[in-house]
Amino acid sequence: MDQDRILLAHGSGGTMMRELVENVFVSGFGDDVLSRMDDAGVVAFPGSRVALSTDTYVVWPLEFPGADIGRLAVCGTVNDIATSGATPLYLSVGFVLEEGLEIDVLRRVLVSMREAAAEAGVRIITGDTKVVENGHGDGMYINTAGVGVVPDGVDLSGSLCRPGDVVLLSGTLGDHGIAVVSTREGLSFSTDIQSDAAPLNRLVAAVLAAAPATRCFRDPTRGGLASTLNELASASRVSMTVDEASVPVREQVRGACEMLGYDVFQVANEGKMVAVVPPDQAQAALEAMKSAPYGADAAIIGEVADGPAGKVYVRTLFGATRIMDMLVGEQLPRIC
Amino acid sequence: MDQDRILLAHGSGGTMMRELVENVFVSGFGDDVLSRMDDAGVVAFPGSRVALSTDTYVVWPLEFPGADIGRLAVCGTVNDIATSGATPLYLSVGFVLEEGLEIDVLRRVLVSMREAAAEAGVRIITGDTKVVENGHGDGMYINTAGVGVVPDGVDLSGSLCRPGDVVLLSGTLGDHGIAVVSTREGLSFSTDIQSDAAPLNRLVAAVLAAAPATRCFRDPTRGGLASTLNELASASRVSMTVDEASVPVREQVRGACEMLGYDVFQVANEGKMVAVVPPDQAQAALEAMKSAPYGADAAIIGEVADGPAGKVYVRTLFGATRIMDMLVGEQLPRIC
Repeated sequence: MDQDRILLAHGSGGTMMRELVENVFVSGFGDDVLSRMDDAGVVAFPGSRVALSTDTYVVWPLEFPGADIGRLAVCGTVNDIATSGATPLYLSVGFVLEEGLEIDVLRRVLVSMREAAAEAGVRIITGDTKVVENGHGDGMYINTAGVGVVPDGVDLSGSLCRPGDVVLLSGTLGDHGIAVVSTREGLSFSTDIQSDAAPLNRLVAAVLAAAPATRCFRDPTRGGLASTLNELASASRVSMTVDEASVPVREQVRGACEMLGYDVFQVANEGKMVAVVPPDQAQAALEAMKSAPYGADAAIIGEVADGPAGKVYVRTLFGATRIMDMLVGEQLPRIC
Repeated sequence: MDQDRILLAHGSGGTMMRELVENVFVSGFGDDVLSRMDDAGVVAFPGSRVALSTDTYVVWPLEFPGADIGRLAVCGTVNDIATSGATPLYLSVGFVLEEGLEIDVLRRVLVSMREAAAEAGVRIITGDTKVVENGHGDGMYINTAGVGVVPDGVDLSGSLCRPGDVVLLSGTLGDHGIAVVSTREGLSFSTDIQSDAAPLNRLVAAVLAAAPATRCFRDPTRGGLASTLNELASASRVSMTVDEASVPVREQVRGACEMLGYDVFQVANEGKMVAVVPPDQAQAALEAMKSAPYGADAAIIGEVADGPAGKVYVRTLFGATRIMDMLVGEQLPRIC
């Protein structure tokens, strides 16, 4: 590459695009199927049900403590596939690059993606790059989509929660959202709080092996735990109650939320998983979660009840009960 | 929906996002699996090899004669999957919406996507929406990714072209690129030239049934026929020669290219397919193409020779031979 910044011609379909694809993307990802540069990647598929998921990442800034847009893009789609109980196998990646982006930034993001994919055990086998004029993007947006194989007998859904079920959370809330916003605002605690972006497919597989009657998994990203539980309660026509004292939150994150006026239940996470499990398998699920990567701080945080359908409650530290509302309006734009 | 424009809160993960997803996306696409609103769509997969492909669409303007960004986004990924010989089955869709976008525009685009998916026989089973601040996008960018099943015995690749093979093209060149640029520039011939955006999976399947020894398919999008043939010649280490007189081009497109200074071989297409076929199956492939949807103007346009490896030539209308170069620099930004 003679250039050190992205030019419009890198999206033209001509010689400069080919150079970018060969010298930056193909060598950056290092996958045999991707290297063939056919329009679609063709790979073995070992099963009879496929899980397909996608997310586009528009986080700003592109790099922040603990992760960057690349790690986020791989982990987010891996986790979305994993929520179905599937084993994530293959990813596609689509870039929208802004004219003027430093190619060194792109290279760093690709290293993050490659490392996250290796950690998750997935392959990036196909991709696409578009370039938009300076001022029409923010450095880069990344879409990842991915496929996983759903094991026979696994049939999870957010609509399967039943009264008596137990709600588990795999670790501390709010780290990602606070890490990004504190970087953006130049707040002094920014170096103490790291994004939790992480691939959770092994954690999900461990829980599913230990607690095969698990109803569903969901990763509480945008809208935080509050959106996730409200969606599950609504889909299953049940109520849920969370015990505030049992929800793991780092001290610095709790302090930042107070300072910024955020409800930690509504702050985005990128490396946490919620599981809803029948009561007789809850302890086994918890132990599996705690032993799995990224699950050390896992806890049982609440339970499912008969109704009123779609309502989520918090038993506060002071013994009162309040409603855990979904976010109304916008709290942290461009958090993922 | 109370609002008639996209707000940042539509990307928040909160109540407004849920309303947008339920009232616009889920009802717009009308797919059972999508309606479950789980993080991944789970569906049957009838085979042992999967083809995965992705493209992001940043075309400007969003609507143009003959198609819009939505039809483009469905057809483009369907066609990329089809090039591998796979049957496209399922799509994911990821939107980046710009704050201020009229929701009516979004609804029109969803209608186009739904119609194109129905025409191609694919299902949109999972999706994602992000919102960026006004001025940080152009109305919308759309990523589609998709999976197809690769039939047993089918193993196509751009590296398999051999000397003596015949090059087929499924119809007229340049329609999409000229339709978009003429709209953008307000040129007077804009209403005469329509984008060719179309799903070509049935055409590919018909050719493959008639000519099972087909080496490869490739859709000549960005960079046009010139990029496609140069890539194939390079991957297969062969040369190719195209007979200019046999390449179908509409009169208005030829005229527009002359006026604008474009080489029609470098202009983008979104509903054309190139096939490379051994000589003994070329006639069968041509007949199958001509009988298939969108293949009426198909023609044999050239042949493969021993070398020099990676070179593509044109026999001009005047009997001379010139090199068919890949685009250098940028011709038409944001064409797809």
